Amino acid sequence: MAEHTIHFGILGCASIARRNSRAIKLAPNCSISALGSRSLERAKKFAKENEYPAYVKLYGSYEEVLDDPNVDVVYVPLPTSLHVKWAVLAAQKKKHVLLEKPVALNLKDLDVILEACEANGVQYMDGTMWMHHPRTPKMREFLSDSHQFGKLKAIHSVFSYNAGEDFLKNDIRVQPDLDALGALGDSGWYCIRAILWATDYEMPKTVTALREPEFNEAGVILSCGASLSWEDGKLATFYCSFLTNLSMDISALGTKGNLRVHDFVVPYQDHVGRFYVTSDLGWAGIPEGADPPPTVHSIETDLPHEAHMVAEFSKLVENIKSNGGAPETKWASISRKTQIVVDAVIASIAKGFEPIEIN
Amino acid sequence: MAEHTIHFGILGCASIARRNSRAIKLAPNCSISALGSRSLERAKKFAKENEYPAYVKLYGSYEEVLDDPNVDVVYVPLPTSLHVKWAVLAAQKKKHVLLEKPVALNLKDLDVILEACEANGVQYMDGTMWMHHPRTPKMREFLSDSHQFGKLKAIHSVFSYNAGEDFLKNDIRVQPDLDALGALGDSGWYCIRAILWATDYEMPKTVTALREPEFNEAGVILSCGASLSWEDGKLATFYCSFLTNLSMDISALGTKGNLRVHDFVVPYQDHVGRFYVTSDLGWAGIPEGADPPPTVHSIETDLPHEAHMVAEFSKLVENIKSNGGAPETKWASISRKTQIVVDAVIASIAKGFEPIEIN
Repeated sequence: MAEHTIHFGILGCASIARRNSRAIKLAPNCSISALGSRSLERAKKFAKENEYPAYVKLYGSYEEVLDDPNVDVVYVPLPTSLHVKWAVLAAQKKKHVLLEKPVALNLKDLDVILEACEANGVQYMDGTMWMHHPRTPKMREFLSDSHQFGKLKAIHSVFSYNAGEDFLKNDIRVQPDLDALGALGDSGWYCIRAILWATDYEMPKTVTALREPEFNEAGVILSCGASLSWEDGKLATFYCSFLTNLSMDISALGTKGNLRVHDFVVPYQDHVGRFYVTSDLGWAGIPEGADPPPTVHSIETDLPHEAHMVAEFSKLVENIKSNGGAPETKWASISRKTQIVVDAVIASIAKGFEPIEIN
Repeated sequence: MAEHTIHFGILGCASIARRNSRAIKLAPNCSISALGSRSLERAKKFAKENEYPAYVKLYGSYEEVLDDPNVDVVYVPLPTSLHVKWAVLAAQKKKHVLLEKPVALNLKDLDVILEACEANGVQYMDGTMWMHHPRTPKMREFLSDSHQFGKLKAIHSVFSYNAGEDFLKNDIRVQPDLDALGALGDSGWYCIRAILWATDYEMPKTVTALREPEFNEAGVILSCGASLSWEDGKLATFYCSFLTNLSMDISALGTKGNLRVHDFVVPYQDHVGRFYVTSDLGWAGIPEGADPPPTVHSIETDLPHEAHMVAEFSKLVENIKSNGGAPETKWASISRKTQIVVDAVIASIAKGFEPIEIN
């Protein structure tokens, strides 16, 4: 396998790094050039399991990846509590930063990261893979169609999975010192992003956590929900959970049409993404014997969505590296808006489910 | 067409009465024997348009229907503000009462109706048609399956339709003196019922209206949402609207499975009701090339669900009339629970979206 233009260094051997290692291999414009772990043995084991090519440098520390002059980009799938330290250091070493979500424990931390990226002229993007599926712009086309969809009125999103006993005891995502945001950071992040995506990133007026969230003994969220309200009457709700059978839904309802997708976070199949629409559906619109709505849209793709993500990131980095271009700032802006809503849900829970005004 | 055992009298010529006139004709154990309207001309016109048989008595008042000794049952599709008067009078005249929803403006009014029915030994049922579709007990079977579905964790329901300009100006459902509950009574009723049905009628701990409901100039609700929370962490949300393209969804998420239905209020097709389930769905459960979940369940039915409703009601009445049986009380209990949640949503809106405790 030939090395491509943009060289990734990976910090840590998290399970999500397996999927994104595959993505970097599959994408046409980048390759993995270094992997750092807390021990060289772990790095070697991970590289072998994931069939890394021989040219990939393996390191027993994260620092060495950041000091490798051959590395353009670092992908950071570390526990959230370590993001500020390593993302900032990466930016200071002029490495572009692809940061796994949840990106930070709170907006203050995220702003430290974003400011470091900006100050050092490096590209930032969070690892929200579904944003890069070719299905996503097709869904946007439908939502933007004033005849087929009309005005957006209501959104509901769910991301849940039944994580199982071992996860609920041992995974970093239920440890308060590692991923204190629990299911809200891990799963709710996607729902919040989906809601903001559907509104074309128009921020809500208020965010209110729903009552009776579930926590583990250490106080980490295992399931919760929230509602978001806009002044024009738009309404959104979401539910995220580690305790509930796999669900990955967006339902966006407009005055004239509806859009539904049931596998937005990780498509059921790599090569195709489906979504379902109805339009101008009346009471007597279904001829007897006909199939009922919705209409299925199937978007074929040669690459899984995470490969589209690293390819898009590499394209932005290539533009900076080879053309002297400036970083694309929209990904920082979208990350920041998502984090603001995450923080508002946490604040609402802390204040006994009071609404939090978004300025 | 022969007359069947149980004889219906209908009060008023509401549009829903068209559908239920057809239902009474289709059901095997009942028939229409009288129709009363505010004028005899309107009754005649409606009878002709709906191809009523010649033996149906047509009256220019509601009182005459109640005084007709041949009438066993009255179906009351009048505006909600008239329900107390006519349902109570019907019960006092020993007529069994099939009451269109929303059944009452508030619990106090509903209790007056229910007490009149109980005192007079007549059967009560509300007109929530989907409860009687053969699909509904099949969905219940799935929700009760501890292996396939597990423990119920989250429910979301939507009933919306884009009612259009004429409706929003003229329909009784947007007039504060006729149907003051607006979209909450007309559409939210179904969502609330769906949520309670999914919990097997376990009442929530709190009901909280979501912010930014939409009202017309007269203060009638055109769209709103609410969340319901149970102490064990179960969470439900719903959205109802006169302003949003047709949506009729229940999504019930369990620890081990999910159930979805997209046409629960009025099935897209009379002869079949579909629902969709997934069970024990994991990350890598979908072989490449296979169809993605869910599994479709198609429940065939000879009769539309509203015909099942009037047949079930007539069976209960027959048991009282011919066997000296007692009225079935579960329908009053379910109606009452639904109304309690409707009232809580109204109270929550009135109190600035504070949670309302349910005792």
